[in-house]
Amino acid sequence: MQGTAEPAHGAGVIDVLREALGTDVVSLPAEFSGRRHADSSRMPCAEPVALLRPRTTEQVATALRICHEHGQPVVTQGGLSGLAGGACLLGGEVALSLELMNAIEEIDPVSATMTVQAGVPLQSVQEAAAAAGFMFPLDLGARGSATIGGNLATNAGGNRVIRYGMMREQALDIEAVLADGSVIGGRRKMIKNNTGYDLRNLLIGSEGTLGVITRAVLRLRSKSHAVSTAWCGVPDYESVTALLRMAQERLPAGVSAFEVMWPGYYDFVLSRLPELRAPLTGRHAFYVLLESSGADSVSQNAAFEAFLADMLEAGTLGDAALAATEAHAAAFWAIRDAPGEYGRLIPGRVSFDVSFSIADVGEAARRCDERLRAQWPDAHILIYGHLGDGNLHIVVQQPDWPASAAAEVKLVVYGVTAEMNGSVSAEHGIGTKKLDVLALSRSPAELATMRALKAALDPRGILNPGKLFAS
Amino acid sequence: MQGTAEPAHGAGVIDVLREALGTDVVSLPAEFSGRRHADSSRMPCAEPVALLRPRTTEQVATALRICHEHGQPVVTQGGLSGLAGGACLLGGEVALSLELMNAIEEIDPVSATMTVQAGVPLQSVQEAAAAAGFMFPLDLGARGSATIGGNLATNAGGNRVIRYGMMREQALDIEAVLADGSVIGGRRKMIKNNTGYDLRNLLIGSEGTLGVITRAVLRLRSKSHAVSTAWCGVPDYESVTALLRMAQERLPAGVSAFEVMWPGYYDFVLSRLPELRAPLTGRHAFYVLLESSGADSVSQNAAFEAFLADMLEAGTLGDAALAATEAHAAAFWAIRDAPGEYGRLIPGRVSFDVSFSIADVGEAARRCDERLRAQWPDAHILIYGHLGDGNLHIVVQQPDWPASAAAEVKLVVYGVTAEMNGSVSAEHGIGTKKLDVLALSRSPAELATMRALKAALDPRGILNPGKLFAS
Repeated sequence: MQGTAEPAHGAGVIDVLREALGTDVVSLPAEFSGRRHADSSRMPCAEPVALLRPRTTEQVATALRICHEHGQPVVTQGGLSGLAGGACLLGGEVALSLELMNAIEEIDPVSATMTVQAGVPLQSVQEAAAAAGFMFPLDLGARGSATIGGNLATNAGGNRVIRYGMMREQALDIEAVLADGSVIGGRRKMIKNNTGYDLRNLLIGSEGTLGVITRAVLRLRSKSHAVSTAWCGVPDYESVTALLRMAQERLPAGVSAFEVMWPGYYDFVLSRLPELRAPLTGRHAFYVLLESSGADSVSQNAAFEAFLADMLEAGTLGDAALAATEAHAAAFWAIRDAPGEYGRLIPGRVSFDVSFSIADVGEAARRCDERLRAQWPDAHILIYGHLGDGNLHIVVQQPDWPASAAAEVKLVVYGVTAEMNGSVSAEHGIGTKKLDVLALSRSPAELATMRALKAALDPRGILNPGKLFAS
Repeated sequence: MQGTAEPAHGAGVIDVLREALGTDVVSLPAEFSGRRHADSSRMPCAEPVALLRPRTTEQVATALRICHEHGQPVVTQGGLSGLAGGACLLGGEVALSLELMNAIEEIDPVSATMTVQAGVPLQSVQEAAAAAGFMFPLDLGARGSATIGGNLATNAGGNRVIRYGMMREQALDIEAVLADGSVIGGRRKMIKNNTGYDLRNLLIGSEGTLGVITRAVLRLRSKSHAVSTAWCGVPDYESVTALLRMAQERLPAGVSAFEVMWPGYYDFVLSRLPELRAPLTGRHAFYVLLESSGADSVSQNAAFEAFLADMLEAGTLGDAALAATEAHAAAFWAIRDAPGEYGRLIPGRVSFDVSFSIADVGEAARRCDERLRAQWPDAHILIYGHLGDGNLHIVVQQPDWPASAAAEVKLVVYGVTAEMNGSVSAEHGIGTKKLDVLALSRSPAELATMRALKAALDPRGILNPGKLFAS
């Protein structure tokens, strides 16, 4: 990297921006007081020196060209639902919000694509897709506020990755403005396009450090007319992975969700949220929410039931409850979605979003649980995740902890992650929150390569400095 | 780009390579005379100044470090089945063949992964996956010679992209040696891993210009126990796209192939290859090979038949033949696979591999056909492709053509590609063959960005110079 430019905040650059873009696009601190700037990571966040709210890609390009010339740092912001601090400000930056670039520009039903501006919320895309007879598969709790641009910048995951992939699999093309104001990509709807380097995937997941994503051509999928859902009690981890493998091989419509919950999680949320009801009697070593979504409800449901019966017969399942109605299925999902209540239930928690090979997830969870329990016998240790993707969420909390405990908990969980060749961030990204552990999942050669790419595309280091890499 | 290094062939660097790696790894021209160096593109190809056949990643790293120091150009070679000249030599390069790095290192049935060296042929991977109870979905005609490394370097496509994606979707991780000999990536089996820039996708499809791919962790899929196949006659293009959409929405196992053939292709191959038999009587505006692959043959076949009956009833299909046996299905595929006989059937042909949005494919084909026919009324014009991916193959030939005709044919087809915002290379890549048309599918800002990335990762320009970019 050729060195991060010194922040040049103060009169000069902001005046130039206001002159070029107008005062409706560029506001000063006095004009946006009280506005929220922090994302959902609970990381510290400064005030921006100015707020830019462009309406067009051309305005974004003008803004970046000026900031590039002046070495003015820029933090791009979407729905502020990120969990890693990627959209927080460290001080001296302008905030570039895409909130006014929220148009759904086109739905092409023959090509099964939707072209949108980056500031459109995820839920609007889902609803527009449904209204057009399609489905947009990415889904996550913050769907109402998270924007497509933020989903792309962080390569968002969620519950349906096992079937449809991460956000990077949902975009056929993206338009992005680079640090110097040049614009790449845009409106291509091709599924296959082998014409040089994959700039799209380089920008996706780069957390605002390589460019500002302004537009995307999203891929729409066929609606699932039939959803089969079961709540499963499973006797051991080998049976969990066997169930996954058999379900993928034998269910006619495949597996659209395979969410695994360890008993510590299950017992905790059932005991704390009185509206939840246990789908099964008896305790099990693991709980699995299994879902299969396809075209034809009659044959699919019959096959789903027959599959569960076979798995019970074989002992792979200890017990299972089939959702007979949508309300049943929603009740199962409510148990898995309980983390939406964490803010109220477990303040002061330490949360992890790690991943391993599917073969290693069970052992990784066992080691984390064992070592955490040895050190903090009374802590709540909640483990659950999208097992089909190897993605484990771990939440640890003890009411009377000193502030120093978080660092010690991280040592344990990231220690296991490093020793089992896992990833310190499966789906939330690095931002500022995981800067200090990125090197556990990336080699020095990989980090040097990332820095070389950053220097090539943003030589003055104006885009989201201090994120992903320490600046 | 900081400028391509002058080729430093001659005594110095080759001696250093032989000294460091041994004469069994580094051979001189006299030691490999008669060996084939050209790929399958029919582009010109020079002799290498030396042939490197490393056995380990460390040897590849040593070789590149030395070549980097000496500014010695390197062309990486796999199975030499490429169609764009990406593995051909322009003169002065060493050839780096990965043929001895062909081990299947591990199959992990729980994680559903296979770890391989880059030189292993695609067919070996397919067979090893099948023997382990899985399926590796990438498939193309050159499966016996094409290597996984070459598939990755060119982001290979083929017949099953509609369901499983391109080669980039089949690799969870790749190991690659960069120009300076540093090694990135390797053995991660995680499906989700948001830890910084997507180096994997940057290397995949970069045609040997950014690094040498040495190892991959491949993702295995569940075996399809049941395959339903139909040959369809379709009355118009609107019905072709309606059939695709309805099949994706209604077939319980989805669509695993949707191959469309225009009558000019169909009539030509049926008339020239006596072993082919027409699956349907009567002529149709379009022929579609429709395949659905899933878990359960009984319910799937019933749904497939019912779907075809509905489409016939609605007039979306003019006629359809269901493959009752595997031999029937193979006979349908033989019609689609006739391009394997092109070498014998249509010498001197001009071939295209372009893509469009699915909505535009019909009109693009119509324009190409109309304009080609106006200029060359007697030419064979064969049009067919993976329509579900927007990928069109066009082959044009007239027996008595002068050598200059090829350039004129290209003007027509790439003219349509440019005016309809298509891609000049859907799946074959750019290599040297499409250098002159890359700018029709990539903007000046995109090309500048690619050059900046190339300069960042290969500052001396030793990796496959003259490919992808004119050097």
